[in-house]
Amino acid sequence: MDLSLPTSDHPIGIFDSGLGGLTVLRELLKSFPKERFLYLGDTARLPYGNKSSATIRDYLEQNIEFLLNHRVKAIVVACNSASSVLEEDEPWPVPVYGVIQPGARTALQVSQTRRIGVIGTRATIGAHAYVYTLKKIDSGVQIFEQACPLLVPLVEEGWEDDPLTNLVVYRYLNPLKQVDVDTLILGCTHYPALKNAIGNVMGANVALVDSAHAIAELIHEDVAAGRLVAASATNPEERFRLLTTDVNDGFKTVAARLMAPHPIQTLIHVHLR
Amino acid sequence: MDLSLPTSDHPIGIFDSGLGGLTVLRELLKSFPKERFLYLGDTARLPYGNKSSATIRDYLEQNIEFLLNHRVKAIVVACNSASSVLEEDEPWPVPVYGVIQPGARTALQVSQTRRIGVIGTRATIGAHAYVYTLKKIDSGVQIFEQACPLLVPLVEEGWEDDPLTNLVVYRYLNPLKQVDVDTLILGCTHYPALKNAIGNVMGANVALVDSAHAIAELIHEDVAAGRLVAASATNPEERFRLLTTDVNDGFKTVAARLMAPHPIQTLIHVHLR
Repeated sequence: MDLSLPTSDHPIGIFDSGLGGLTVLRELLKSFPKERFLYLGDTARLPYGNKSSATIRDYLEQNIEFLLNHRVKAIVVACNSASSVLEEDEPWPVPVYGVIQPGARTALQVSQTRRIGVIGTRATIGAHAYVYTLKKIDSGVQIFEQACPLLVPLVEEGWEDDPLTNLVVYRYLNPLKQVDVDTLILGCTHYPALKNAIGNVMGANVALVDSAHAIAELIHEDVAAGRLVAASATNPEERFRLLTTDVNDGFKTVAARLMAPHPIQTLIHVHLR
Repeated sequence: MDLSLPTSDHPIGIFDSGLGGLTVLRELLKSFPKERFLYLGDTARLPYGNKSSATIRDYLEQNIEFLLNHRVKAIVVACNSASSVLEEDEPWPVPVYGVIQPGARTALQVSQTRRIGVIGTRATIGAHAYVYTLKKIDSGVQIFEQACPLLVPLVEEGWEDDPLTNLVVYRYLNPLKQVDVDTLILGCTHYPALKNAIGNVMGANVALVDSAHAIAELIHEDVAAGRLVAASATNPEERFRLLTTDVNDGFKTVAARLMAPHPIQTLIHVHLR
């Protein structure tokens, strides 16, 4: 086993419980044109969103270990449920980025009224992951939370642009609209696919915070500060590989839709244990 | 370890990927007032419905092994996805009942036009589990399938009786209504909770086949034929125990709603491995 630390030529690892994290991969492909990425979707155990913290923590550690064994130079936890059980300053051998910290930071930069809404799966909202992080940075901020368990299956059904989805989005978001938040954190990596529907309910005056942007910014900062070494100056031929712990035709369809127009060259079925 | 075979005083085991199988438990509690039941909800890995057959088979075997170790005298696989990977005449040490065989048999008894609809999760429909079983019994039957991936999350959200759910049900079921099926198999153990909405779309002339009834009938037959020994003539104090591989408040709420008016006395968190 090669025990040396990963170098600049190694890929950046990303994982999610399923395919929602592909919205983060897309953003990183755009922001880091010279980097390669290794994406792990733990589709055999998805969704994490309705599982307990102890179970999610167990899965987080297995996924990180798996990516480390594949010699990634950094890891993006592109899953809010998994990010919510990530502690600050854990001694991982490579930088590990959750989505919550950068999302919270961006929301506080953007918000003027300090009234911030957060939407997510039941687990993310039940754990109040964003509340804790937001309050730690700015104790005076007012936070309004809403769990939206139907939004992920609606995206996976391919009904992003659909009157029925608009009704569901309206039901979940109208209470947040009524309390006049000026910023809304999309606290689930599937939700960028519903940005239009969400924007229609919230209106143009409410800023939507997508953690993919926020995390790209944070990685740029770490590269600038020397905490992470950028790839050498060549554009890799195969920009990303997808690994999933379970494969079926539905996943392939959803993955192709979320990654379009990037073609999926490699999709490999892996076993974590 | 006690290696003797389970006796009449042992409970009947039931498992599902989550809580949908509780609709089967309810029916069995009613049909078998002297029996005790041990229910295993594999909530840490739910849903099975979007996983591959190989993964589901692996989970099926682990769940059966777990229940056998808890000395059940029979096992009901109250999960269509798991039932679809159950082979006929497997050499288990106790009777193992899937939901597909009895559901298919009942549908064929009820249907007059031999035009039968089947609804289920993506896995159940993608595996054509009911088609195979129905055609084996009656090769001339015409079968119309529809995957309905949003129905489970709608039930778990508690929106059973809701205009929004009616819209979703209408979208999924109208194509089946249009092709004039006279019988509809509810091929997912969550769906009995939506019987009203489904009945409203399909109309009074379409028979809805709920596998819980069908499985109770089959067990009665096996008791009559001596293949399964009934409990001795006392009503047990604690009729059922719930075991889940993961616990959170959401599960407790959904379980209490699905089991009402039966109070949940015992809910235990177990680890399968």
